[in-house]
Amino acid sequence: MTTVFHMNECIRKTKQGIPLTESEIRQLVRGIVPQHENERIPDYQLSAWLMAVCLRGLSDSEAIALTFAMRDSGQVLHWDLDGAIADKHSTGGVGDKTTLILAPIAAACGIYMPKMSGRGLGHTGGTIDKLESIPGFRTDLAPDAFRRQVREIGCAVAMQTGDLAPADKKLYALRDVTETVDSIPLICASIMSKKLATGADHILLDVKVGSGAFMKNNEDAAKLAKLMLRAAKADGKHCTAVLTDMERPLGMNIGNALEVAEAITVLRGDTASELGDFCITLAAETLAAAGMGDKASCREKALCAVESGAALARFAKMIEMQGGNPRVTEDLSLLPESACKRTLHTTSAGWITAMQSEEIGRASVLLGAGRMTKEDGIDPGAGIVLHAKNGDAVAAGSPLLTMYAAKESQLDEAEALLKQAIRITEKQPAPQPLIREIYSTGD
Amino acid sequence: MTTVFHMNECIRKTKQGIPLTESEIRQLVRGIVPQHENERIPDYQLSAWLMAVCLRGLSDSEAIALTFAMRDSGQVLHWDLDGAIADKHSTGGVGDKTTLILAPIAAACGIYMPKMSGRGLGHTGGTIDKLESIPGFRTDLAPDAFRRQVREIGCAVAMQTGDLAPADKKLYALRDVTETVDSIPLICASIMSKKLATGADHILLDVKVGSGAFMKNNEDAAKLAKLMLRAAKADGKHCTAVLTDMERPLGMNIGNALEVAEAITVLRGDTASELGDFCITLAAETLAAAGMGDKASCREKALCAVESGAALARFAKMIEMQGGNPRVTEDLSLLPESACKRTLHTTSAGWITAMQSEEIGRASVLLGAGRMTKEDGIDPGAGIVLHAKNGDAVAAGSPLLTMYAAKESQLDEAEALLKQAIRITEKQPAPQPLIREIYSTGD
Repeated sequence: MTTVFHMNECIRKTKQGIPLTESEIRQLVRGIVPQHENERIPDYQLSAWLMAVCLRGLSDSEAIALTFAMRDSGQVLHWDLDGAIADKHSTGGVGDKTTLILAPIAAACGIYMPKMSGRGLGHTGGTIDKLESIPGFRTDLAPDAFRRQVREIGCAVAMQTGDLAPADKKLYALRDVTETVDSIPLICASIMSKKLATGADHILLDVKVGSGAFMKNNEDAAKLAKLMLRAAKADGKHCTAVLTDMERPLGMNIGNALEVAEAITVLRGDTASELGDFCITLAAETLAAAGMGDKASCREKALCAVESGAALARFAKMIEMQGGNPRVTEDLSLLPESACKRTLHTTSAGWITAMQSEEIGRASVLLGAGRMTKEDGIDPGAGIVLHAKNGDAVAAGSPLLTMYAAKESQLDEAEALLKQAIRITEKQPAPQPLIREIYSTGD
Repeated sequence: MTTVFHMNECIRKTKQGIPLTESEIRQLVRGIVPQHENERIPDYQLSAWLMAVCLRGLSDSEAIALTFAMRDSGQVLHWDLDGAIADKHSTGGVGDKTTLILAPIAAACGIYMPKMSGRGLGHTGGTIDKLESIPGFRTDLAPDAFRRQVREIGCAVAMQTGDLAPADKKLYALRDVTETVDSIPLICASIMSKKLATGADHILLDVKVGSGAFMKNNEDAAKLAKLMLRAAKADGKHCTAVLTDMERPLGMNIGNALEVAEAITVLRGDTASELGDFCITLAAETLAAAGMGDKASCREKALCAVESGAALARFAKMIEMQGGNPRVTEDLSLLPESACKRTLHTTSAGWITAMQSEEIGRASVLLGAGRMTKEDGIDPGAGIVLHAKNGDAVAAGSPLLTMYAAKESQLDEAEALLKQAIRITEKQPAPQPLIREIYSTGD
C-alpha cells in the first residue's frame, strides 16, 4: 500500500512532539534531494520543520532514522582492503590539526584512513585549507586516484564530494540561514550520515566542548556523543567519541601553514607536548578499536611509529602523491609565511586565565588565516603562534604570542581584539584537562 | 543611526525567548511586503521564525507591535462621517450569518458599518459567499462605490482588497502551509491588523470556542480576546470581544442561500430565537460602545429597529445598491435551492448530545455549500436545515435535519458523515450557554 506523503503532517507531528515513522522520515529526506521534481519539499516547509526539531527535539530512534535516510541520499562507499578502515571527525576546533598527525600515524601502523574533509568557515579552520598551504598540494582528487592512494600508502585527505550524503549538504545550507544549527539530533544526522557513507569500520569522533563550541557544556556534549555512538552501532560500526576542552586552542599554532608546521614538529618526535600526547591518545584509541591490542600496547605502537620516522615518511609520501613538495617535512621554511609579523608581550606577571579559542579564532580570521563567508580568500601564511596558553604562568614583559599577516593594518585589528580577550590574573586558575571524557561503542 | 537588519538575529532571539524591538518587528514586516526587492526576507526564514513564534510565543508588546506594523503595511482607511463607525469580526463559525443581521440593525440605528469580508474555506463559511447567493448581488465594489454606499445607507459588505494589511495576506498563506496558524499572537496580529486598518472606532470580535474552533478552550479564547483588546486600546479604539460556544452551529441553517433566508427571518422579527437573541445582544453591545445609552436601552433600540421593519428595509436597500434583487427580503423563494433534498429522522427518542459544528460544516462542504481548496466552486442552494440541535429533546422518528444538494450522491456522502456524527442519549446533557463571556476595553 502506498500512502501519500504530507509534509504538513510531519511538521505538525514534530511540533506537537509526536514521533515520525521511519517511512515518513525517509520520504522527508527524499523530498530534500528528490529524484522527481514533484517530490521536492519547499524550503519554507523544511525550515519550519527544522525549527520545530530545534525546539521540540526528536527521539533517538527518529534521529537515527534521519541519519540513515541522509546516509542513503547519495553514494555509500565500499572498500575492498586487507585491513581496518578508520575515519575521524572533529566538530570544529581552533588550531585543530590532529588529522594531519593522526592519519600518517594510523597508516604507518597498518590502518587505512581515507579522509574526506572540508574548508574552514568562521572562527574554526578546515583541514583542506591547511593542507593546501603546502606548495603544490591538491585536494580535489578524482575517486579513482583517492582509492589508489589509500590502497598504496594507507591515507589520503581530499575534498568531500557532493555524492556523499547530498541531503546533508542541502539541509545544512538551510540550517545555516535559519538559526537551526544547534540541535543535537540534527548535528548527529549531519555528521553521522557522512561518516557512515564513507564506509569506515571505525569512527573516531572529537566532540569539542566549551563556550566557543556548538556544545557549551559536558552534558550536551555527552548527549551528542552517545547519540552518535548509537547511530554508529545501529549501522554495525565501531565508534569512539572523545570530549575535548575547547575553551583553549589546540596546540600552539593557529593558521594554515603554521598548523602544518606544528603537525610536522609532532611527527618529527614532539609527542610530549599537549598536542602530541593528544594525537598519540587518539591514535591508540583507533588502533585498539581495530583490534591491534590493548590501549597500552597500541599507545606504544603509535609512539613507535613517530619515533621510528615511519609516520613522518608516510606524511611525506601523502604530500608527494597529492602533488605537494614532500621536502616541507624536512625544511619548514619551504612553507609560506606572511610578510608582516608582530609579537605581543605581557604587561604584568601572573597566570593566563582567559585566552579563549573563539577570540583566538576570530583574530586569526582578521589576520587572513580564515574566511567569514564562503567566497573569501585566505592567506596561507597568516596566523598566530602562542608562546603561552591558558593556565601558564608568565613573567611581566614576556612574549605572549606572535601574529602573522600580509598587512600591518591586519595586525592592528587582531591586536585590538586579542588585547581585550586575554586576561592575566594573580591567582592560578584550576587546571583543565584537555580530554574531558571518552565514550565507545565497545564499552 | 541606521542599523543593518538581520533576519537571522530575529529568528535567534524569538527562538531563545528574547523580545524583539519594535524597530526589528517593523523591519521584519517590511521584509514581508518590501518596497525594494533587496529588502525581501526569504520564505524559508519567515517560516522558521513563525514556527519559533508558535513554540516560544511573543510578549504582548511584541504582538501589538507586530499588529501595528502589519496594519501599516498597506492603506489605513479614514472616514469622514457624522456618526460612529463600527466593524465586526468572527474567528470562523459554522452557520454564522450574524453580519447579515447585525449590519442592517446597526445602520438602522445610525451606526456606520463598512464591512470587508472574505470567502469561506474548509468547514467554515464566508459572508461573501453567502451574500453572492442572492441573485445579482456583487461584492467587488470599487473603493468609491463602497464609501458612497456606507455614507448613504450606513452599511456595505464587500470583498477585502489587497490594499488592506497586505503583509497579513502574504504571512497567512505561508502559515497555512507550514502548520503555524495556531498561535495566539499571530492570530491577534492577523485579525487586528486588518480591523485597525479599516478605520472603525468600535470593533466587535466574535471569538469562537470549542473543538471545531482555533481556540479549543475558554482559557485560550480569553487570552486571545484580551490580547486583541489590548491592541485595539493601544490604537485608541473601542473593542468588545464575545466568546461564543462553537460546539454547535449558530442558528438552524448552514449553507449560503439557506443562511441568507435565516438572516431575513430574524430581520422580519424572529428575535426570540437563539440566533435572533444573539444578534440583538451583539447589536446592543455595538450601540452601547458607540455611546447610544446603557445596554438595556440599546437593546430596546436594536429590537425596535427589527420590529419597525427599519433593519429589514436597510438590508433590502443594501442588496439593491450592490446589484441584487431586494425582493428576496419579501419572498424567500427567490433564493436558489438545490435540486435534491432529503430529511433524516431520529431512530430513537432522547436528547441530542453530539451534533458538532465541525462535522456539520464538513457535511455541508460535501453537499456543495463550501470549498476545500480555494479553486473549488460552490453551490449557493446547498446546505443543511436543522430541525433540532444539541440539547434538544426528540421523539423517535421525528425529523432531525434536511439536506440540500445538486446530486443524490452528495446526499449519500453527507448522510454517512452526519449519521456518524450525531448522537442521541437517554440522559439530558447539561445546557451550554451560547455566549460564554464578554470582555470590553470599556470595562
